[in-house]
Amino acid sequence: MEESNAPTSKKGAKKAEAKAKKEALKAQRAAELAAAAANVTLEDDPAQDNYGNKQTTASLFSKDAEEVEIRSLDESHNGKTVVVRAWLQNSRVQSAKMGFVELRKGGNWNIQGVVMASEEEPLVSRRMVKWITGISPESYVAVEAKVKQPLEPVHSCRVSGLELHITKCYVLAPAPAMLGMTMAAASQPIVNFSDEKAQEGDADAGKAAKPAAETTTPSASMLTHLDNIAMHKRAPVQQAIADIRIQVKRIFRSYLEDLRFKEFEPPCLIGAASEGGGNVFRLPYFGDEAFLAQSPQFYKQFEIAGGRERVFSIGPVFRAENSNTPRHMTEFTGLDLEMEIKDSYTEVLSVLEGVLLSIFRGIQERCADEIETVRAVYHSEPLLLPEPGKEVRLTFAEAQKLLREEGPAEFANVRDDEDMSTPQEKALGEVVRAKYKTDFYVIDKFPETARPFYAKIDDAGTTVGEGVRVTNAFDFFIRGQEVLSGGQRIHNPVELEERIRAKGVDPESAGIKEYLTTFRQVGVPAHGGGGIGLDRVVAWFLALPSVHLAAYYPRTPKRLSP
Amino acid sequence: MEESNAPTSKKGAKKAEAKAKKEALKAQRAAELAAAAANVTLEDDPAQDNYGNKQTTASLFSKDAEEVEIRSLDESHNGKTVVVRAWLQNSRVQSAKMGFVELRKGGNWNIQGVVMASEEEPLVSRRMVKWITGISPESYVAVEAKVKQPLEPVHSCRVSGLELHITKCYVLAPAPAMLGMTMAAASQPIVNFSDEKAQEGDADAGKAAKPAAETTTPSASMLTHLDNIAMHKRAPVQQAIADIRIQVKRIFRSYLEDLRFKEFEPPCLIGAASEGGGNVFRLPYFGDEAFLAQSPQFYKQFEIAGGRERVFSIGPVFRAENSNTPRHMTEFTGLDLEMEIKDSYTEVLSVLEGVLLSIFRGIQERCADEIETVRAVYHSEPLLLPEPGKEVRLTFAEAQKLLREEGPAEFANVRDDEDMSTPQEKALGEVVRAKYKTDFYVIDKFPETARPFYAKIDDAGTTVGEGVRVTNAFDFFIRGQEVLSGGQRIHNPVELEERIRAKGVDPESAGIKEYLTTFRQVGVPAHGGGGIGLDRVVAWFLALPSVHLAAYYPRTPKRLSP
Repeated sequence: MEESNAPTSKKGAKKAEAKAKKEALKAQRAAELAAAAANVTLEDDPAQDNYGNKQTTASLFSKDAEEVEIRSLDESHNGKTVVVRAWLQNSRVQSAKMGFVELRKGGNWNIQGVVMASEEEPLVSRRMVKWITGISPESYVAVEAKVKQPLEPVHSCRVSGLELHITKCYVLAPAPAMLGMTMAAASQPIVNFSDEKAQEGDADAGKAAKPAAETTTPSASMLTHLDNIAMHKRAPVQQAIADIRIQVKRIFRSYLEDLRFKEFEPPCLIGAASEGGGNVFRLPYFGDEAFLAQSPQFYKQFEIAGGRERVFSIGPVFRAENSNTPRHMTEFTGLDLEMEIKDSYTEVLSVLEGVLLSIFRGIQERCADEIETVRAVYHSEPLLLPEPGKEVRLTFAEAQKLLREEGPAEFANVRDDEDMSTPQEKALGEVVRAKYKTDFYVIDKFPETARPFYAKIDDAGTTVGEGVRVTNAFDFFIRGQEVLSGGQRIHNPVELEERIRAKGVDPESAGIKEYLTTFRQVGVPAHGGGGIGLDRVVAWFLALPSVHLAAYYPRTPKRLSP
Repeated sequence: MEESNAPTSKKGAKKAEAKAKKEALKAQRAAELAAAAANVTLEDDPAQDNYGNKQTTASLFSKDAEEVEIRSLDESHNGKTVVVRAWLQNSRVQSAKMGFVELRKGGNWNIQGVVMASEEEPLVSRRMVKWITGISPESYVAVEAKVKQPLEPVHSCRVSGLELHITKCYVLAPAPAMLGMTMAAASQPIVNFSDEKAQEGDADAGKAAKPAAETTTPSASMLTHLDNIAMHKRAPVQQAIADIRIQVKRIFRSYLEDLRFKEFEPPCLIGAASEGGGNVFRLPYFGDEAFLAQSPQFYKQFEIAGGRERVFSIGPVFRAENSNTPRHMTEFTGLDLEMEIKDSYTEVLSVLEGVLLSIFRGIQERCADEIETVRAVYHSEPLLLPEPGKEVRLTFAEAQKLLREEGPAEFANVRDDEDMSTPQEKALGEVVRAKYKTDFYVIDKFPETARPFYAKIDDAGTTVGEGVRVTNAFDFFIRGQEVLSGGQRIHNPVELEERIRAKGVDPESAGIKEYLTTFRQVGVPAHGGGGIGLDRVVAWFLALPSVHLAAYYPRTPKRLSP
C-alpha cells in the first residue's frame, strides 16, 4: 500500500506552489526546446519513422516481428525479424554507412547489433546510422532487427554466434551524455569500502580484494557505487550476486518446507531490548520506547510454545554496532529456524547441516554461470565441501586443541573455556581445510561462557578448562568465518530462570519477564534451532571482499542511502 | 545469528549473582520436592516404567512402534502399535480402571485416547490410569498405543474412525494446573480488540464480530489472547489463519516467479522520511537520525533503474499512525512488485489482478479445511469472485457515479475529483456485489489529488470534476475494503520533478533529492507496480473482525509485546 504525500504546512505549500509553477514552466520550455532540436534532425529524413525517442513502443514494430529476450536467442531465430529491448552498452562508428552497438539485458547477456545504411526497404538512412551510434551508453532501447550469423563469432558478446541487423531503433529512456560511473568502471572489483569520502583505501578491504585481471579502467570506491546505485546494480557482477542470493533464499525455504517447516514473520518492533542491551536501536513510540529486534530468537520459541512444531523465518534484523568494517552491517537478513526436538539436539544440528550443504551444493549447480561472472571480477577458489557422510563436526575443545597443536604459534595457548576470536576462527579454518579438505565444518559444544542464557547445558555435565560446563550449542563455519549459530534452548522454566540469573540478568526485567512467563504458562516441548546470516553466506561463499557487496542496500553506521 | 548476553554493569552483575544463587537454591529445592512427590506415587507401581515425566523419549518405546502424526493416521494403522506426540487437550475418568484423553496436534487434528487398566502385558495399572487422566490439559505428551476402531465414531474428534489404546504415556512438557486461558476460551471468537485493559468491548470490533454459535464459554479479549500467546497460537482457528497466511505468501511468490519476477529485499532503515512526513518512525542513528520505511516504493524503482526488469519483495513496513482500530497496525507485511512496462500500464494491472485472483482461488482450493476451521469460529460468506474474463474494472469516475446513483442517499453527492472515504468504499462494495456478483474489483484512474507525486498522469489528458487530471493508478478491493494500491510511476526525471513541485514537495529535500538523482543519472524504462497488504488480504478474505487476528504478533500504538 502506498502513502499519499501531503505538504507539511499551508504556508509552505503556497510558497512551494509558486516556486513549482516557475520551475515547471522552465522545465516545459527545456522539454520543448529538446523536442524541437530532435525534430530538426529527423523531420526531413525519409527513414524518420524508424528511429527516435519514444515514450511507448505501441504499434511501432512490424506485426510479424517476435519480441525476444537476448538470453533466448538461438539458431532457430536465424533469418527472422525480432524485437529486442535492451540497454545500449557501447557503440562504434565504422563508416558513415555503418556502425555497431552492443546490447545487454538480463545481467550479462549481450549481443552485437549492426546498423547499415540501406536505400531499400526497410529504409536505413545515414542519418539514422549516425543517430543510433550516437545514443548515450546505458540508454534503454527497443530495436527491430533481422537475426543473422556474423562472419566470425563476436567474442566480446555472450551471444557470439548471432548478431542483430537493426532496421528500427527507438530510445525509450535516454541516459545522460555523462554517466556518474561507466559500466566499465562498475564492472571493476571494488577495493575501497570506506564510508569516508576523503579517506582513500581501506586496509582491511584492500587486503581481501583480489582483482581478477590487470586493467586500465580504474576501480570505483563502494561509495561511488552506492551514489550511482542504478549503474552499480546493472553491472553483471552485481546482477549475478543478486541472482545467487535469490537462490540461497529459495533453497533454504524449499528444503525446510519439504521437512514440514512453516514460515512465520517475527516482528521488528519490540517492547524491550531483551537480548543483550548494548547493540540495540531504540526509538520513541507513542510516548513510550520501542526497540528494533536483534534476532527473532524469542519469537521462534513462542511459535514452538504455540504448537507450530517446526518454523522458519526470513527477515531483517538490526544491530546498533558502531563497526565500520567490511564484515558488519546495521541491518541484515536472517534465515532462522526452530524445531521441536524428539531425542537429541543433534536432530537440529543435522537439519541445519543439511540445509546449508543443500544451499552450497545447490548454488554450485544452479548458479554456475553467475558464479563464473562473479569470479571474473572477484577471483576465488571454489568452496571445498565435505563428501556426503564425511561432514566435519568438532567439539569446541577439539577445535581449540587442533588450533593449539597445528595452528600458528600465537594460538598455542588458546583455552577450552573461552570464546574464539575472529583471527582464531580464520586460522582454524586453514587448519581444518588442510587436515579435512573442507571449507565447511561445525564446531559443537561451546562453553557456557560463550553462549547466551537460553543455551541448554550439556546433560552429561561435561566441563572444559576450569570447570566450565559446555552447552548443546554450535557454530557453523565456511572459510574460517561463522555463518550460523544455533543449538538447543532451555524449555524448562525453572532451569531457564536459573540460567537467566546466573548470567546476571534480572528475570523481572522487561522482555525477559514476558519470555519466562510464556514457558511457565504452558508446557513447551524440547526444541532448538539456529540462525544464518544470509548476507554472510553469500559473501563468504563467493569470497567477496565485503559483505556489503552481497546486500541490496548495505546499511552501515555512516550510510543510510540510497 | 544470536547475541551473547552481557550484564549491563559489574555492580549490577554482582548483586544479581548473589540474588541468583539464592533463587537457584530455592528453585532446586522446589524441583527436588516435586521429584520426590512424583517418585512416591510411582516407585512401587509395577507399571512405573510405562508413565511419568520425562526429558527425552530416547529408548522408552517399543522398537517396532512406528512414530506417526495424528493427521497421518488411517485404516492402514488399525491393529498396529504406534507412538504419537501431541498436546493432551482434555481428559475424563470413566472408572477407576478406565479413562479417556483427547490428543491434538497439527492445528485441529485430534483423536481419542483410551487408557484401560490391564494386568497383562503391556501392563497398565489403576494408578497409571489415574495419573494419565490427571495430566494438566495442554501438557505435551508422547504415548505408545495400539490403534483400534471404536465401537462407534468419536464425533468430538477429527480422526473419528480410530482411537488410541494407550499403553505408555510420558509427559514431556507439563502444563501448569491453571492455564491463563483455556483452549475452550482460546477457541471462542474475540469480540473485544481494545488495547485498554479497563475498557470493556470496542464498538467497531464488536459490530464486526459474528460469533458462529451460542456458547457458554466466555470470549476472552484480544489482550488476554496476546498475554497468553502460546494458547492463542495453539487454538485451531489461529493455526488455520497462520496456515492460510503462509499459502497467500507462497502463491504470491510462485505466481510471480513463474512470470520471471525476481525477489529482492528493500531496507527498513532509511536516511529520510521520503514518502509523506507524518506517519514515519524516527530513531537516533550514530549521532544522526534514521527512519523506518513506510513502503519499499523508492527501492522497487531503484531495482528497475538497476536493470532488474521485474521485482517483488515481501517484508515489513512501518506506519507511526496513532490509530487504535481493528484495521490498523504500526508494523505489517507488504507484498510488493514492480515491473517494466512495454506499451501500457494495464500490463501491470493485469499481473496484479492475476496474482490476487490466483491467491484467492488458490486458498479456496488448497485451504478448504483451514477456511472451514476459521468459519466455525468467525462466520463469513465465501468471497465472491468474478468468472474468468468477467473481472470488474471501473474507473474512479464510474465508481463514484455508481455510488451516487445506486448507493445510500448520504453518498448522492460524492465527487469525481476527491478521494473516497472508508464508508464510501464499503458502500460501493455492496453496490458492486449486488450489480456484478463479485466481492473483488478494481478501481482505476484515480484523480491526481488522491495519489502521490510519483503517479503517472493519464497520457490522454482526461480530467474529472473541476479539471482535475486522472492518473494511471488504481486500487483493488475485496468486500469493499482496499487490499492493493498501484499504478504506473513517472520515469522521466523532468516530469517527475514537475510533479514533486506541484505536490508542494521540495525536490532538494532529503530522500527526494537522491530519488530524483537516480532518474537523472541513467535512463529508466517505463514501469509500474503495486503493493498488497498481506495482513489485510488474509483478514478481509476471511472477513475477520480485526486485522490483528491475521498477524503473528500484532503491533499497535499501545502494544509491543509479546
